[in-house]
Amino acid sequence: MADRDQPFHVDVALVHYPVYNKNREVIGSAVTNLDIHDIARAGRTFGIGAYYIVTPYQDQQKLVGEIVGHWQDGYGAAYNSDRQEALNTVKICDDLQSLYDLVCRDGNKPLVVATSAKEQGKGLSYGDLQQRIFKGEHVLLLFGTGWGLTEDALADVDAMLPPVCGHGDYNHLSVRSAVSIVLDRLLGRT
Amino acid sequence: MADRDQPFHVDVALVHYPVYNKNREVIGSAVTNLDIHDIARAGRTFGIGAYYIVTPYQDQQKLVGEIVGHWQDGYGAAYNSDRQEALNTVKICDDLQSLYDLVCRDGNKPLVVATSAKEQGKGLSYGDLQQRIFKGEHVLLLFGTGWGLTEDALADVDAMLPPVCGHGDYNHLSVRSAVSIVLDRLLGRT
Repeated sequence: MADRDQPFHVDVALVHYPVYNKNREVIGSAVTNLDIHDIARAGRTFGIGAYYIVTPYQDQQKLVGEIVGHWQDGYGAAYNSDRQEALNTVKICDDLQSLYDLVCRDGNKPLVVATSAKEQGKGLSYGDLQQRIFKGEHVLLLFGTGWGLTEDALADVDAMLPPVCGHGDYNHLSVRSAVSIVLDRLLGRT
Repeated sequence: MADRDQPFHVDVALVHYPVYNKNREVIGSAVTNLDIHDIARAGRTFGIGAYYIVTPYQDQQKLVGEIVGHWQDGYGAAYNSDRQEALNTVKICDDLQSLYDLVCRDGNKPLVVATSAKEQGKGLSYGDLQQRIFKGEHVLLLFGTGWGLTEDALADVDAMLPPVCGHGDYNHLSVRSAVSIVLDRLLGRT
C-alpha cells in the first residue's frame, strides 16, 4: 500500500497533436473549452503540478491563453476564485518534444506514462504506478484527444496504463472522464 | 469484497432542479450538451441501466430530445454508432417526484443515493454501497448540477456518498468528472 501522505509530483498533458481521427489519419484536434476547465479542476482536486495543453496551432494557443486569462485576471477571477486556482496550473506547449524539454528543465526526466482505450505493450498497473508516485518518482501522464495518441507518439513513452474498463467491452469515455478516473485511481482517497 | 460478476442495476439521474446557484438561491440550471454526452458515455462504459435527465423546462427537454435524436436516428447514428449506444440510455423527466415514480414502476423503490461535494449526514461508504449493488439491490444515484442539490431534495434520499477527495480540501470537480469517478469507484475494474 502506497503511503498517500508523502509529497508527490504528477503532471498531466492533454495532447492535440499527433493524434488519430476516426479514420486513423494523423491530425491535430481542436482545443475545447471544457477540456481546459474540467481537467484543470480535476487536476487541482488531485494535487497535480502542471496541466500542459499541447497544440502546435497558434490560434488554438491564443484561445487557451484567452480562456485561462479570463479566469485568472479578468471578470472570472473575481466571479469564481476556485476556477482561477484550478486554471493556474495550465501551461501551453507546441509539441511533444517541447513538452519533454519543459518537464526535464531540472535535468531529471519524469516517467512518461500514456493511457489508451486499447490494450498496448509496456503495461504498468495502477497499483505499481501509485507506488512509484508515492515513493517520489516524478510522473508525466499523457492523454490523447481525438481517437488517441499515434503509434509514433506511444513509441516514445516509458509505460502504458491499462484501459479504463467497466462492464463489458464498451470503453468510449470522453477524455475528460478518463483523466478524472485515472487521477482518482492514482491519487484519490476513498 | 463484492462479487463483480453478479448482474447489477444502477441508474443515474442528473438533476437540474431543484439545485442551488452560487448564492445558495434555488434555481433550475441549464442542460448542457456535454453533460448529456459525457455522462451517457461513462454510464454505458460502466453498465448502468438508465440515465435520467431531470428538468422541468419544456424547451430544455426539447433540446435534450433533439440532441439525443441526432445520435439515435439522425446523421450521428451512422457517423458514430458507439455514441448512439451510449445515448440510448437517456430518459427525460420533469422533476424528482416523476423520477421516483418512473424508477418505482415495478413497485420496488430503489435505494436513492446522492453525492455531494460537502460532507453530509446519512453517510454510506463506497465499499458498503458496492456490496449492496452486487448483492442485487437496485440503486439510483442522484447528481446535482449548479452548486448542488437543495437541502429539501437531500432530505428525501436514503443515503449520501462521501465527497470525492484528492489532495487537500479543493474538490470543485465538474459534475461530469464526479459522475465518472463515482461510477468507476462503484463499478470499475482495475
